[in-house]
Amino acid sequence: MIRIAVDAMGGDNAPGELVKGAVDAVNRKDDIEVLLIGREEAVTNELKKYTCPEGRLQLIPASEVIETDEHPVNAIRSKKDSSMVVGMSLVRRGEADGFVSAGNSGALLVGGQTIVGRIKGVERAPFGALIPTTKGVALLLDAGANVDARPSHLVQFARMGSIYMEHVVGLSRPRVGIVNIGTEEEKGNALVKETFPLLKACTDIHFTGSIEARDIPYGGADVIVCEAFTGNVILKMYEGVGGALLGLMKEGLMSSLRSKLGALLIKPALKETFKTFDASRYGGAPMLGLRGLVVKTHGNSKAVDVTQSILQCATFHEQGINEKIKESLDAGKGEQAAENQI
Amino acid sequence: MIRIAVDAMGGDNAPGELVKGAVDAVNRKDDIEVLLIGREEAVTNELKKYTCPEGRLQLIPASEVIETDEHPVNAIRSKKDSSMVVGMSLVRRGEADGFVSAGNSGALLVGGQTIVGRIKGVERAPFGALIPTTKGVALLLDAGANVDARPSHLVQFARMGSIYMEHVVGLSRPRVGIVNIGTEEEKGNALVKETFPLLKACTDIHFTGSIEARDIPYGGADVIVCEAFTGNVILKMYEGVGGALLGLMKEGLMSSLRSKLGALLIKPALKETFKTFDASRYGGAPMLGLRGLVVKTHGNSKAVDVTQSILQCATFHEQGINEKIKESLDAGKGEQAAENQI
Repeated sequence: MIRIAVDAMGGDNAPGELVKGAVDAVNRKDDIEVLLIGREEAVTNELKKYTCPEGRLQLIPASEVIETDEHPVNAIRSKKDSSMVVGMSLVRRGEADGFVSAGNSGALLVGGQTIVGRIKGVERAPFGALIPTTKGVALLLDAGANVDARPSHLVQFARMGSIYMEHVVGLSRPRVGIVNIGTEEEKGNALVKETFPLLKACTDIHFTGSIEARDIPYGGADVIVCEAFTGNVILKMYEGVGGALLGLMKEGLMSSLRSKLGALLIKPALKETFKTFDASRYGGAPMLGLRGLVVKTHGNSKAVDVTQSILQCATFHEQGINEKIKESLDAGKGEQAAENQI
Repeated sequence: MIRIAVDAMGGDNAPGELVKGAVDAVNRKDDIEVLLIGREEAVTNELKKYTCPEGRLQLIPASEVIETDEHPVNAIRSKKDSSMVVGMSLVRRGEADGFVSAGNSGALLVGGQTIVGRIKGVERAPFGALIPTTKGVALLLDAGANVDARPSHLVQFARMGSIYMEHVVGLSRPRVGIVNIGTEEEKGNALVKETFPLLKACTDIHFTGSIEARDIPYGGADVIVCEAFTGNVILKMYEGVGGALLGLMKEGLMSSLRSKLGALLIKPALKETFKTFDASRYGGAPMLGLRGLVVKTHGNSKAVDVTQSILQCATFHEQGINEKIKESLDAGKGEQAAENQI
């Protein structure tokens, strides 16, 4: 049995959609058990609405909730009985194999590092975001966990990201690119210039060189490595530019009777097309390099997103991703040592 | 008379659209003179197509052309008789007040720094990009000229950008924001944390704090200050996300007879709406802090973009922007000295 803990109190639609997502997950996959963490009465009331396989859904009481606008570090420190802290402690103690939350992202990042803890050998645990491209999906990391990273961190991100994309998302030989301001090898800031040759020397990843930001939405690489400040800017530009353009489009469509009529005609076709530009079917944003997978699903997640994220945690565990990460980092150390001897 | 030099050989539509743009500019504004720089025969052939006011359009011969894919530093060094090098030399010698080019951006940046040269007191000359927002236009700087900038550089960018947006674009009290990964004051990487209090202490700009990348397309600030690596990523994400979304949309619209019909109906309304999301009517990308304004207009510029960029150079000169920049930097130094005494 794979055991996944779910923060039943996090996000805009808690606990309703969280509980429903958990119920759907255990109904879809036989060998998982979900631990729902949250306020007893609220969660029980939701659970009553469904029937689900005996013993596969367990309520773990937690009296506190970390709100979206709370200061991450303070919240994690002071709310010891919050659904988030309780859930991550389960992963740390090995009582759960993964943790899913739609709550406060900052608190989740802090808790991941301080409560769940890193795998031995991992220098920094990156926040990986699954971003849509015209060709499918790419993994951007670090999307916001550790600013001012060093070259060795970026190399580890590349290794962990490759393993994730190959074994969880199912891409063979994922192309690894480093975000840069040009594609020539001499381009870049100090960090990129130092990291580039290190990535080139990695024998266990398929490094394809620099990727300019403009090529990211077109699927120019499958694993996109960068420092967290840059990664966060990329992630938020996706949201911002996408949202602003679609907003303008809607406004334009509503501006005249003629265009309103046109909007009715194009709606089904556009809906179908934009489905390809939606990464949520691959699950939430994974934090890699921790003792168990921590997945952040967006704040307004519906049951279907929660189910997807739970199944993502299950695949992560089944595929032994953390064992593969350990092996890869050990191999990396071996390469490094060999190089130092020469 | 204001004299603007134009690189007649740069960009995909040279020399045709460049020459036409220059002709239109002198016809639109009485007190400017345009120096067209390029291969004599090619430019003369284009000039023959138009009539224009006597003596207001002058051809300056230059036998070489820097191609788009050439290595910037090598090209500037070796092609002394290229339209770009000749044009920038005119600005350096004070024989032209500004320079417009649609050619190799990298070469233009290098030439700006090495040929035109900086105003005394300017530590780094940033590349400013005018980006569209749902509220109008914003100036992003540095959009790619100087990676790994220091806090004092960012403060100068903020001052120069404010002056530009106020006196060239015509916004009163432009809001200055620093790109950050959160809006709380303690957020950010080392550079942002160090720069934030310095911007806060500037009395001559309207600093409104951090701006997250997602708020940039919605017009969250008028002058957006960041280090060049980040700025270049922002600029290219605009292109990439915008292009990918519009591409998908077109594909979706062409997918069925029904949606094709819808597309015909919505076209005029959308065309009108997207006009607001287009910064090109404000001219090309200005390089600030140089002895004269250097404007990069995009590679596939049409005559209308060239005209716009020439008029932008004229406004820059008329408004005495460089004198204002000098005053502002001197005032900044005064503030700094006063602070150091305390």
